[in-house]
Formats: sequence, C-alpha cells, structure tokens
Amino acid sequence: MSEQARGADSRTLARWLPLAGWLEHYDRQSFGRDLLAAVIVSVMLVPQALAYALLAGLPAQVGLYASMLPLVLYALFGTSSTLAVGPVAIISLMTASAIAGMTGVDGAALSTPEMLGAALLLALVSGALLVTMGLLRLGALVNFISHPVISGFMTASGILIIASQLGPLSGLSLKGGNLIEMGQSLLALPTGIGIHLPTLTIGLGCWAGLILARRHLKNGVMALGLSETTAGMCCKTTPIIAVIASSLLAWGLNLGDQNAEHSMALVGAVPAGLPVISLPSFVSHDWSGLLMSALLISVVGFVESLALAQTLAARRRQRIDPDKELIALGLSNMGAGVSGGMPVSGGLSRSVVNFDAGAATPLAGAFTALGILLASLLLTDWLAWLPRTTLAAIIIVATTSLIDIAAIKRTFRYSRGDGTALTITLIVTLLHGVESGIMAGVVISLGLYLKRTSQPHSALVGRVSGTEHFRNVERHAVETDPELAILRIDESLYFANARYLEDTVLALTADRPSLRHLVLACQAVNLIDASALESLEVINERMTAAGVKLHLSEVKGPVMDRLKCSDLPENLGGEIYLSTFDAWQALSIHGSHCGQACARDGVSQTAALNG
Amino acid sequence: MSEQARGADSRTLARWLPLAGWLEHYDRQSFGRDLLAAVIVSVMLVPQALAYALLAGLPAQVGLYASMLPLVLYALFGTSSTLAVGPVAIISLMTASAIAGMTGVDGAALSTPEMLGAALLLALVSGALLVTMGLLRLGALVNFISHPVISGFMTASGILIIASQLGPLSGLSLKGGNLIEMGQSLLALPTGIGIHLPTLTIGLGCWAGLILARRHLKNGVMALGLSETTAGMCCKTTPIIAVIASSLLAWGLNLGDQNAEHSMALVGAVPAGLPVISLPSFVSHDWSGLLMSALLISVVGFVESLALAQTLAARRRQRIDPDKELIALGLSNMGAGVSGGMPVSGGLSRSVVNFDAGAATPLAGAFTALGILLASLLLTDWLAWLPRTTLAAIIIVATTSLIDIAAIKRTFRYSRGDGTALTITLIVTLLHGVESGIMAGVVISLGLYLKRTSQPHSALVGRVSGTEHFRNVERHAVETDPELAILRIDESLYFANARYLEDTVLALTADRPSLRHLVLACQAVNLIDASALESLEVINERMTAAGVKLHLSEVKGPVMDRLKCSDLPENLGGEIYLSTFDAWQALSIHGSHCGQACARDGVSQTAALNG
Repeated sequence: MSEQARGADSRTLARWLPLAGWLEHYDRQSFGRDLLAAVIVSVMLVPQALAYALLAGLPAQVGLYASMLPLVLYALFGTSSTLAVGPVAIISLMTASAIAGMTGVDGAALSTPEMLGAALLLALVSGALLVTMGLLRLGALVNFISHPVISGFMTASGILIIASQLGPLSGLSLKGGNLIEMGQSLLALPTGIGIHLPTLTIGLGCWAGLILARRHLKNGVMALGLSETTAGMCCKTTPIIAVIASSLLAWGLNLGDQNAEHSMALVGAVPAGLPVISLPSFVSHDWSGLLMSALLISVVGFVESLALAQTLAARRRQRIDPDKELIALGLSNMGAGVSGGMPVSGGLSRSVVNFDAGAATPLAGAFTALGILLASLLLTDWLAWLPRTTLAAIIIVATTSLIDIAAIKRTFRYSRGDGTALTITLIVTLLHGVESGIMAGVVISLGLYLKRTSQPHSALVGRVSGTEHFRNVERHAVETDPELAILRIDESLYFANARYLEDTVLALTADRPSLRHLVLACQAVNLIDASALESLEVINERMTAAGVKLHLSEVKGPVMDRLKCSDLPENLGGEIYLSTFDAWQALSIHGSHCGQACARDGVSQTAALNG
Repeated sequence: MSEQARGADSRTLARWLPLAGWLEHYDRQSFGRDLLAAVIVSVMLVPQALAYALLAGLPAQVGLYASMLPLVLYALFGTSSTLAVGPVAIISLMTASAIAGMTGVDGAALSTPEMLGAALLLALVSGALLVTMGLLRLGALVNFISHPVISGFMTASGILIIASQLGPLSGLSLKGGNLIEMGQSLLALPTGIGIHLPTLTIGLGCWAGLILARRHLKNGVMALGLSETTAGMCCKTTPIIAVIASSLLAWGLNLGDQNAEHSMALVGAVPAGLPVISLPSFVSHDWSGLLMSALLISVVGFVESLALAQTLAARRRQRIDPDKELIALGLSNMGAGVSGGMPVSGGLSRSVVNFDAGAATPLAGAFTALGILLASLLLTDWLAWLPRTTLAAIIIVATTSLIDIAAIKRTFRYSRGDGTALTITLIVTLLHGVESGIMAGVVISLGLYLKRTSQPHSALVGRVSGTEHFRNVERHAVETDPELAILRIDESLYFANARYLEDTVLALTADRPSLRHLVLACQAVNLIDASALESLEVINERMTAAGVKLHLSEVKGPVMDRLKCSDLPENLGGEIYLSTFDAWQALSIHGSHCGQACARDGVSQTAALNG
C-alpha cells in the first residue's frame, strides 16, 4: 500500500473513529503526559464520583461505575483530547429529578433497586438519543438553548444543588427537587429532629478547609518553588485530603456505630470489584415522561460538554466536530447504562485540570478509567468510612462556581428580552425544578424572538448628502423628497409580520397625500414567504388604487429568485431597482431624472445580474 | 353641551361601542338598505343554520338560536358594516370534533343533552377567550397562523365536511372526525345496511338542482331583465327553494312515517319559540382539553372572520379594528353560549350577499336576527318535515368552494417550505382531524422559519464598479481585494444561529491566508442578542489571534444602541464604519487609502450620528 493510499485510508477511518487519526503518531512523550494527567484526574474524580452519585440519590459505587466504561468509550470516539467525561453536578441533579418522576420515590430518600434501574434506563435512553441526533447531524439543534437561558439555568442549578446538600451537611433530612419542596420538607420535619452537631462540625470543617485551600494554598505551594500550573493542580486535589482525613476520623472515633452518641451518616459498604455488564431491567410506565427527561438530560449534558470542549480546543487550535461529539457522548452514556452507571457528561473542573496537566490525547481518559477501576478494587473498605457530610462539602465548594449573579445585571443591561429569558429560567428552575426551568427558558426565548420579528422595525430613510448611502431620517441629517418615500424594512417578511407590514405601509401613505412613489428598501429582507407575498400583492393593489407607485430596491439574489416564481414582478405598479440610489436617481426631484427608461434599465440590470 | 364637546363625547363612546359612531347619522335610506339585506340573508340563513347545527351533531334548532342573540351583539360591538355572523361550516365541524372529545360521544350519533351542554360551554369559553385576547390587544397573535396553513386547513376541512355529509345524503350511518375513522365506520357497517335509495334520490336531486342553479340560473334571471347583482342574490336563495320543495314532498308522501316503505330521516320536531337565557350546565372533566378546543375554535373563527371583514371593508374604503373585532366576536359567542346556541363566526357566502344587497350598517345583522326569530316562531311545524338529505346537499354545495387544490401547486412553486407547511396541514387534518391539523400547521411553519433563520444565508460581497454599491461576488461582476473580505450576513444574529456564524467566519478565514481585514456588513442584521454578542466576541478574539482585524459596517441605529451597552465596540480589533463603502475606501487597495485616520473618522461619524 502506497503512503498516499494509507493516508487516505486512515482519514476515512478517522471520520468514524477519531482514535485512528492520532494513534499512529502516539509516542512515549504523549504516553507520559496522558499518564500524569490521568493520575491527577483520578484523584479528583474518586470523591466527585461518590458525591454526585449520592446527589442523584443513588448508591455511591454507581458514581465509580459511571467513571469506567464511559471514559473508555469517549476515548475511542471523542474528538476532544482533554474533555474529562464522568458524573457531573447538574446532570446528577437532573437525574435525581427524573428518577423521582419515574419511580415516584423522592431522590433524597434511601436509594432502592428500582431507582438504580431507572438511572440505568435513563443513561441508556439519553445515550441513544444523542447517538441518533449525531447520526442525523442534528448537533445544531442545541443552539436553540440560548446563552442567557444556559446562564440562568446554571445559576439556579447551582443554588438548588447547594440547597440539596445542606441536608447531608447538617444531618437534617431534606427532600425535594425545587426550593418550594425543600422548604415544605424542612417545615414538615418532626420537632426534636434538628441539626446534628457532629455532622455539621465535620462538614463545615471540610468546607472551610477546601475554601481556604482554594484561596491560599496555591500561593503557599508556589512559595515552595513549584510553577503556577503545578500549584493550581495541587489545589484541585485537596478534596482527596478532606476525604482521607475525615474517613480516618470516622474510623478512629467509630462514627458509623449506630449506638454511639456521635454516630453519623457514612457512605457505608461499597461493593468491591467491577460493574456487571447487563441491560437495565427497569420497565418504565411512563415512556413519554422518560423520553422527555432523557432528552433534557442529553441536551443539557451535550451543550455543556460541547462548550467546554470547544473552549479548551480553541486554546490549542484544535477543532471539535459537534456531530461526532454527539455520538461519542451518546455512546458514553449508553456504556454507563449497561455497566451499572448513571448519565454522564464532560466535567468542567476535571477537564480544566486534565488540560493543565498536559493530557495529549483522549487516552488520558482511558487511563483515568483504569485509575477508578483500581480505586474500586482496592479502596472500597476505606471509602465505607467516608462521612457523607464531607461529600456534601465537596459538592458545595465545587458548585459555587456555577452561580453567576452578575450575569443577570450584565444581560439586562445589554437587552431586556435576554435578561427576561435568563430571569424566568432562573426563577422557574428554582421554584419548579430543573426540567421545567430549561423548558420554560427555551419556550420564552423563542417566544421573545418571534414576538420581536412579528413587529419589525422599519425606518423612512433619506440620502446622506454626497454619497449613495441612505439612513434613517430621524437619526441622521439626510436629503428627502415629499413625493418619494423610501421605507427600509428591518426584518425578513414572513407570516407573523405580514399583516404588520400592511398596516405600516397603509398608515404611512395615509399620512402623506403628496406621495407619488413608495420604495421598499429590501437590503434587510432575507426572506419573503408565501404569506408576505400575498401581503405585498395587497399593498401593491391598494397603492395603485391610491395613485402611488410601489417600487422595490436592493432585493437580494435568493429573495429575487423566489419572487420571479410569482406574479408580483409583473403586477408591480413600479419597478425593481438594483440599489436604493438607482431608485433615488430615477424617482427623486434631487435625482438625475432620467425617467422611465433609466428605471427600466435598473430592472433589466437586476435581471441580468441575478439570472 | 357644545357641538364640539358632543363630538368628542360620542368619539369616546364610539371607542367602546362602535354603534355610537354610526347611529346618529342613521336615516331612512340606510334603514331601507339594511332591511332589504336582512330579508335576503335571513332566507339564506334558515337552511344553513339548520344544516350546520346537524353538522355539529346538535339539534336543528340550535342553529336558529345561534343566529339571534349573537347577531344582535355583533351589531352593537362589531366594526364591520357587512359581516354576517352565525353558524359556519368549519366552526361547526370543529365543534363536532370538540364535543366528541369532551363527551366521548361521536358527533354523528343522535344528539344528547350532554352534547348540547358541551356546545354551549364551548361557545361561552371561546367567546371569553376572544374577549380576553381583545382586551389584552392580542389580535396580532392570529398572524402566527400562516396563509399556507390556513389554505391547507380550509381545503382539508372542506373535504372532511363533504365526506361527513355523504352519510346523511345517502342514508348511510357514518361517524368520525377524520377520513380514517370514517373509513373504519364504513367498513364496520353491518351487512344489509346500505345506501337508502329514496334518501339518496332526494339528496342528489337537491344537489343537482343547486349546482345547476349556481351555474345557469344567474344568466336566466338576468335574461328576465334583472341586474347582475340582483340575479346573483336570487341564486344565493335557491337553497330555500330546495328546502320548501323537499319538505312539501316529504309531507305529501308522509316520508317521516317509520312504518312506511320509503321513510327517511327528517329534521323532526323543532320546538317553536325563543331560546331560554341560562348558563350552560355541562361540567367538563377535562378543562385543559376544553380550553385547547375553545382556543382553536376561537382563533380559527377569528382569522376567517377578520380576513373576510377586511376584504369587504377595503372595497368600501372602511377600516376594521382587529382588537375590537375580537371583542365583538367574543361577545357574540358568549351570547350564543347563554342562549342555547353554538360557536359562531363570520360566514363567507352570507357576508358577501349582505354586502351585495347593500347593507349599510351592522343593524342589518340585527334585522336578520329578527327574521330568524320570526322563522323559529312560525315555521317550525314546516321545518319538521325537512329531509336531512336536503341539508346535506346544501352543505356539500356550500363547502365545495373551500377546496382549493391548485393552491398546493402554486405555493410549492413559490416556496418549498410554505408548500410543505400547507401539505402537512392538509394531510394531518384529513387523517387526524381539524384540531391536530391546525396545531401541526402552526408548529411546522414556526419550525421551518426557525430552521431557516438558524442557518443564515451569507455572501462575500464586492464593489459594483463605479458605485458605492456592494453585491455577492458569485452573482455579480464586482471588484474584490485579496487582503479584504466583506461578508454580508443575511439574517438577524440570535441564539439559534450564533454558533453557525462562528463556523462560517472561521471557515472563511481558514481558506484565505492572505486576509488582513474582515468586514461584517450588517445592513441585514436587525438584532444582535446576548448569545450572538458572545459569539462576536469569540470571533473577534480568534481573528485578533490570527492577525486579522474584524470590522463592522452599516450597523443600524437600534442595533448600535445596544452594542454601545456592551464591551464589543471597545474590544473590537478593527473599526465600525457607517457604510460598507467607507470601509472599502479605508481598507481596500482600490480604496483611497487614507488609512487609520480616515477609519477613526468613520467611527466618530457613526457615534455622532447614532448618538
């Protein structure tokens, strides 16, 4: 096989298996970088995996299982060299909410086999949806979730996650998927059952330690002579220190003994060994509810994951293929669904650490999976002693970065509509849960966009003296003509604003009895649909009846192509001009008054150029 | 009270009660015209009212009741002088479908008191929704039903109505709200129960008579020396002749006798007298289903009614106020709901006859109500003998005009998207009923619009030699510059296409290593939302990193106002030019090369003009 043929062959393979693209250049240096990154990410991932499983209302080991096969699958199919896939906070919160809906059991209660089955089915279906979207090349669909909606959703999710962890942190038993339910469960607590001081003490201790480490450890380590990047990575591994210290404390004081005075909730027995590969056995009674939950989980997971992967890739001038990412993330989730896991996505903090640690290829992810595998074979006896309050503290610290209150003000300052979408998403998420929140956000942002386009801005324009440029008569000092009105329409013309256009034009002509020519300047009209075409015909008829000639100018190629399939150009009272300046020259008293012949030239020129 | 004060006073009153606007000028001539129109419309309305009540699966007299109070209310509150309100075909079909959903009883069965109660509640709720929309000034909402969707819906409804009348016409018992259900009910008929020949004979006889009258009677009457308009109105009253003739036949041959050989379905006992004013007693078990049905009925009724009123008003150079029409039609429906009626709307054929007969004011409608009142006091004994097959023939002839198959081809020729929306609406309505059809149409047309705007057209433009005009390099012979790319973006920038813009721009710069300046020509950008702003910031960063300066030109006033609230103008690698020609002059090798100073001028000019 020639060199060229082999190159072409591996490129074809790489289209479906990105692995094929980079594996042939894999060398010892890349191996070393990947291995180092994997060790650091594994140390971060163990406590996070346990914590997010508990956040989803599932047994702790589910988090570990979700950090093995999915990572290997992403390494094979993913296009990002640094994205660290696994359990993440928001997806775990959404999983908890979806499981509560599917099983009728609230996420904060002790997990049942039914809930575990529901989580597996959810991961499998989410994954299948993502793969399907990828095969259908529907990656662009996620664009319909706007940035303000994502921002509002993240902030609200952060607040909900923190609120949900206040229970485990303090020993209180709180339940619910939104602030209202949590408040109700707080009020419904039997008198006498209050905050458990030993639990709260350890939890707050861990929290304070993690916060202090985040703020000051980096400078301290840098003072020891390490580089800033290395120091930063050291700080990211402090949660494992909290885990080890509090587990030792729980073991030393025998805090797990139910009869002891200071007994508290520990992670408890984690079965050692590997997950069993099998299909989920849970049978849903509400498939449409399951599908909706799975769709929202997959879309939110993908949006987050893709944004993260693209940001990191841009720093290294690499490219991310959204459709391939859909397939990779989908297969990861399907993998989680058949190997005892839970829905997964790309994790922010772990991916950044992976990037900083120099991960060279997706193999770093596969090595991380190996690390988690070792942990679940060797460390389970120790993890059983881990107090739940420590995990709550870790989640709270990790989640604080999701909350961005300043974004509300910033967005409102730029645009009231975007600010409204953000705020409504935020409020609905807080008061009615994550699924309602994201749906409300999508609906409200689409609604606001449609409302805006249904009442288009339009402006009477005049000529900027000495140029061929035309601007709004109310904003600029421009030349005008009482017999000629040039109306610039600042929107595509489609069914939602067709009638609005009729009203605008008729009001304009009613106000100007001296009018003889009306030019619709169409440089901002990117579409004229069948409804708008009918409206233009109506306008043309009424203008003709009123003795006013209707002209068009600057009709774009694709729009003109369509108009030629209709009777409008033929029936039009006036002409179609290539540019507004041509119309001005032909029709205005300031123009050159070359008259009808010149206007006809304009039309034939347009026809020739567009043809 | 001075003349002026009285004028101002009556104008204020007229804002809420259009009646006050025309009543003071009412004279004997208007009275005569209104009375004549009312007589003709009443003669048309009696058989139609009976027929549409049966079409809705309700007792015949419901149609008469729906033609009294609602007409009086419209006369008081409506703004159209010629719209004839009452039972109409499509609304009756939708009512049948909604009643079947609310009661579980199929519309074609014998009507029960429960069904009547459901119809009353439906009219009341539809009316209340319309009034609410009117008070909230939501008249523009109906614009979201595009013309192709209305066209497809009307054609499909026409086919469904005709199909539903084939049963009564032939004596077969067919049920169902769509073609599939009707086909199933045809196949499920017990063997031996077939077409009833005497019924079919009378039905086809009426049908043939009506068709012939429609085709030839007008010329015949005109030959007698009557004017074309009068002849046209005569033809519209032929249904009453069919009614009288077939009733006499049924009475003469005693066709209603169950024991007689040729017995057939007659309208039967119609209670003489006036409807009782009372609130509907039906209690719905499915309020969200009822609300959805009522919403669709009110929206479809309003869209049809408004389009009709506006068309007729335009011929007399009168104006229709959509929000007042909402209130008037809403009150009419509420009136129907409390007076034993059914949902009503503006009827096409009757309104046209009303217009042609010279109706001068809405009082014509009130006089029509009086005519129907007289009919229901005096004619009920005679109407009992009317064969149902006659009414089926009348409906079929009246409905044929709704079907417009040519529109499908015409719409497809103009635009594939619009054609698709029309076809899907048509097919879903035929196969799944009227409510699903109209909803599918709205969703599909919004979806197609969003899909289109999410993948915006953009074009590299160059200068049309000797002008300040810039056009697509692929369509026109224009000047270009290898160091300067001017990209015209043909769409507002918002969340759904923000990422698409990033991809387009990055692909463009990747292909052109010699590029030093990129100008985004924004004359077609009517909105930059918060998501798109972030994308522009990302693009600006990447361009700067790649050594390319990003410029903007022709940013419109409202868009510029917003951008000034962001950091983009400050962080932009390049400048913001008033016109694309300014950018060309400053940046192109063909330009005047006045350089940086000139570019700065452009910005300050923009700032000054927009400020």
